[in-house]
Amino acid sequence: MPDGSVIVPEAPPAPGPAETESLDVWGFRDTHFDISENGHVIIRGTRYELSGKELPRFLPWVREVLASDVNPREVHQPHYPTAIPEPRIAPAFLSELQTFLTPGQIETQGESRLRHGHGHTQEEMYSIKYSQLGRVPDLVAYPETEAQVTKLVEAGKKHDVSLIPYGGGTNVTDALRCHSHEGRTIVSVDMRRLNRILWIDRTNMMASIQAGAVGRHIMEGLAKYGVTMGHEPDSVEFSTLGGWIATNASGMKKNRYGNIEDLVLDVSVATASGALERTTASPRESVGLDLRRLMFGSEGTLGIITSAIVKIFPLPQVQEYGSVLFPAFEDGFKFMYDLAREATPPASVRLVDNLQFQFGLALKPKSSGGLADLKSKAEKFFVTKIKGFEPEKMVACTVVFEGTRAEVAQQQRDLYRIAERHGGMKAGSDNGRRGYQLTYSIAYIRDFLMNYYIIAESFETSVSWSNALALCGNVKRRLEDEYKRRGLPGKPFVTARVTQVYRTGVCIYFYFGFYYKGIENPQNVYSELENIARDEILKSGGSLSHHHGVGKLRPAFLPRIMSETALQWRRQLKKSLDPMNLFGAGNQNLDIR
Amino acid sequence: MPDGSVIVPEAPPAPGPAETESLDVWGFRDTHFDISENGHVIIRGTRYELSGKELPRFLPWVREVLASDVNPREVHQPHYPTAIPEPRIAPAFLSELQTFLTPGQIETQGESRLRHGHGHTQEEMYSIKYSQLGRVPDLVAYPETEAQVTKLVEAGKKHDVSLIPYGGGTNVTDALRCHSHEGRTIVSVDMRRLNRILWIDRTNMMASIQAGAVGRHIMEGLAKYGVTMGHEPDSVEFSTLGGWIATNASGMKKNRYGNIEDLVLDVSVATASGALERTTASPRESVGLDLRRLMFGSEGTLGIITSAIVKIFPLPQVQEYGSVLFPAFEDGFKFMYDLAREATPPASVRLVDNLQFQFGLALKPKSSGGLADLKSKAEKFFVTKIKGFEPEKMVACTVVFEGTRAEVAQQQRDLYRIAERHGGMKAGSDNGRRGYQLTYSIAYIRDFLMNYYIIAESFETSVSWSNALALCGNVKRRLEDEYKRRGLPGKPFVTARVTQVYRTGVCIYFYFGFYYKGIENPQNVYSELENIARDEILKSGGSLSHHHGVGKLRPAFLPRIMSETALQWRRQLKKSLDPMNLFGAGNQNLDIR
Repeated sequence: MPDGSVIVPEAPPAPGPAETESLDVWGFRDTHFDISENGHVIIRGTRYELSGKELPRFLPWVREVLASDVNPREVHQPHYPTAIPEPRIAPAFLSELQTFLTPGQIETQGESRLRHGHGHTQEEMYSIKYSQLGRVPDLVAYPETEAQVTKLVEAGKKHDVSLIPYGGGTNVTDALRCHSHEGRTIVSVDMRRLNRILWIDRTNMMASIQAGAVGRHIMEGLAKYGVTMGHEPDSVEFSTLGGWIATNASGMKKNRYGNIEDLVLDVSVATASGALERTTASPRESVGLDLRRLMFGSEGTLGIITSAIVKIFPLPQVQEYGSVLFPAFEDGFKFMYDLAREATPPASVRLVDNLQFQFGLALKPKSSGGLADLKSKAEKFFVTKIKGFEPEKMVACTVVFEGTRAEVAQQQRDLYRIAERHGGMKAGSDNGRRGYQLTYSIAYIRDFLMNYYIIAESFETSVSWSNALALCGNVKRRLEDEYKRRGLPGKPFVTARVTQVYRTGVCIYFYFGFYYKGIENPQNVYSELENIARDEILKSGGSLSHHHGVGKLRPAFLPRIMSETALQWRRQLKKSLDPMNLFGAGNQNLDIR
Repeated sequence: MPDGSVIVPEAPPAPGPAETESLDVWGFRDTHFDISENGHVIIRGTRYELSGKELPRFLPWVREVLASDVNPREVHQPHYPTAIPEPRIAPAFLSELQTFLTPGQIETQGESRLRHGHGHTQEEMYSIKYSQLGRVPDLVAYPETEAQVTKLVEAGKKHDVSLIPYGGGTNVTDALRCHSHEGRTIVSVDMRRLNRILWIDRTNMMASIQAGAVGRHIMEGLAKYGVTMGHEPDSVEFSTLGGWIATNASGMKKNRYGNIEDLVLDVSVATASGALERTTASPRESVGLDLRRLMFGSEGTLGIITSAIVKIFPLPQVQEYGSVLFPAFEDGFKFMYDLAREATPPASVRLVDNLQFQFGLALKPKSSGGLADLKSKAEKFFVTKIKGFEPEKMVACTVVFEGTRAEVAQQQRDLYRIAERHGGMKAGSDNGRRGYQLTYSIAYIRDFLMNYYIIAESFETSVSWSNALALCGNVKRRLEDEYKRRGLPGKPFVTARVTQVYRTGVCIYFYFGFYYKGIENPQNVYSELENIARDEILKSGGSLSHHHGVGKLRPAFLPRIMSETALQWRRQLKKSLDPMNLFGAGNQNLDIR
């Protein structure tokens, strides 16, 4: 047994130019969807597997699905950045900041302030391009040490400003949006320079990491020492440890590693009344009211998370992908159910519905011709003619196995055995890998489509097994009905996938989009329809959110899921712990003072 | 896939006479340790495997270990019940209670009030027999419905009384002890008539259970339908679901089923401002500040837990016991470490030190002679002569495997393979089973020994792997030194066992006892030494408690483990959510108004 001595890794290098992020759209600046010289959709850049490849099937498929005449030459030209309000900064506050922050740590430039005032909801992204976001932070501060965070909090209290912690800016709950009625100076506290892995303890499989560390850096930094945190939300390239805790995040590999609340052993927070912290991180304990747990889902309203001690795991001996085709969604769903009950599910297992399956096919790059194309045609023949799968019904399940060789072998045996029982057909590891890699590149498509009058977003829920299928059906039907009832153009795109299994239920992820040409304020139409979908979700026994959170997008639904006492407790808690509303993000209707 | 319809089990039958519990000592009235006609220790009754059996080796062994002349004819005669204060009940409050509770639901009888005023710390148990407990509840209320709990809370608020929820009364943290300075009427709210399993949902593997349901009844009630909650703290015969949540309990089989915080999906609470409750229990969710999580470890200070929705599991296909002998504690510890890292640990795995191993041998019943005795001697010969294990060093690890046949087979292969690497020797399933069954009968021994001038108790901690061995050594050494320094009689009994493994560390359970004849107020001497042990635990990197909690026994240590801000947050929270201190148990120093 090793002696418990810890590794103190070097500070990560300053981010290079390849890491530059776009201000006006999702992701890295080196990547975006485009229309090629041939009139096909293409992903520019070299970062992802799909990068540089033409996707000739995509536009025709979109036109068909939306029953709309999407035209690559008809561009809804963005006007980013639309109006950015002038910063309003209390001079005395600024002077005080200058006593402990360098000029490079204080930013008032417009586009940067704008970027710090939103996440990635469709409404926010539409607003920064076509309308107006409204109130944005007046100043962005970049603390580099925990002591500077403390001083920021003290200065904020003294000068009565509003502090809003900022991680990766990837939320989809309007969590960073500023209330128009906020009269105080709004300071976005960008935590990304607090990005150290402070120590790694491989004897006890723990690491202490600063809250501003970004997921991809945490993965790289830990992998150097043969370990991983295993937390991989779809935003892992950009989101931060502090953000994960504040939104109560879920990682795609939670079956193996757990969700964020399972991974965090301790968290330190700069609060309005000082540092919330502990002397030791225990494997497990019973020490009375554990207020650290309040930080999960706190969404910036109780303080600034500065660091956390998390569990780590050895890098898996084996990582393998897999995929299975099923005749219909119901078959795949029953397979998922049996898998969750009878076996140790693989690190990740996802099931898409038929429309999303088609979506995946439509994103297949132009084949390199010859054999590859033949193979694909032969496969298609086999699936549809020999196996009798119907192209308009069949669905796919994609899988990531991680673990020791023996674990993975066992999981594979169990999974394919159960899949067979439900008519599943193994579809190879390539298709599985592709499904997971799409996660990262597909995130760029939303902003691209917006330029072509298509507005889309995802929303999710968790629900018991027995309510899940009906919920999917109800939400799809309701959205289609409401869309038609409003006389909106073409057909909406509504699709669902099961992204997580639990013994008690599943996480369901919906994608909803439509062609908005001719619709005034489509972002508002979208929001209205999304709220209707949420109403249907709640009526069908689903939760308000599996992992996105509440933010300023969903607080109106809180009274539907909890008693008045529970709401009152939240408000009392906030008022008692932050009476000035120093942490004024205002999420969950907690902008109380 | 089943349709998700739920089972509504019948109400459990009223407890029969066999379920009567003792008021003055631990456990069922039908069981107690005694001295037999032959002068041997014996367990009376028929309930447990050891019941009715003479333990001839026990007294000689105790005399040797304590270096004291423990004499079965020298009894420290208990004077239970010592003084019980007269009840002080505000007449208007009593009148109001009588409007919604029957006479059978209101109790003022002395011994019952006394019983509701304590748990099972050595100090409490010594006090009720030999000195005085002090302030006890003035009235015990037995609500039978959630509505009655609500009315109790309302009446309590109106008449400014103190309400203390009562589950099984098994805590070891002075959590039920009443503060002497409490001037209000103290009402113990005995929850055990709210004992229904409200529904069982086998499709989604959840059950809704009232908070007063006792562990053994939950097990029986669920087992009828082929399921289990899997939560088995050592007190499972008596403790309740509500008590588990309030103390943040840990079950011995947590490797398979999780600790209480992993098992509870939802909890309903009667609070000073109404019912804290939710509409749906989600598999997992992110809905902002989750105040239900505050109930874990709340120790009666925030409200009365009325029911919870918990995860359930199929009854295991296979349950098997096992045991392994190791040359020394360090070997067994390294085995535990490798097991936690390399394999899926079995439902439960425990490692005792040499003294506790000897303790187990001393509790072996008189052999039935002949072959059995020979076998034991032959075994001993093999272990010590052939294998070379030293009787004064060797230790034992006991194991419970649960799961499917395949899971158990895999776990057994892994476990014995790893054990061999550390010099472990398989010692059979009988020894394993015996170890676990001892858990329940051994709990009765403390009260018995107290009659013979021996005072003893357990206390526990959690600690990282790398600090664990040193912590064990430090605590033992410190207690022995301090004992000697005080010139106390004979030798103290200090022993440790590892009762839980986590990837990041372990739970360590200490037993400490001594011969107290001639010591004035031995309960106070004990407390002083226990505090010293806790000081040493904290210095050695251990936690304040793994699962016992804080109560009124350990709040003085809270400033050593958390920042002033964390303490302040607790106080502010309590004050804000229960400004009258209606829930006046006063644990964790939270008797604030």
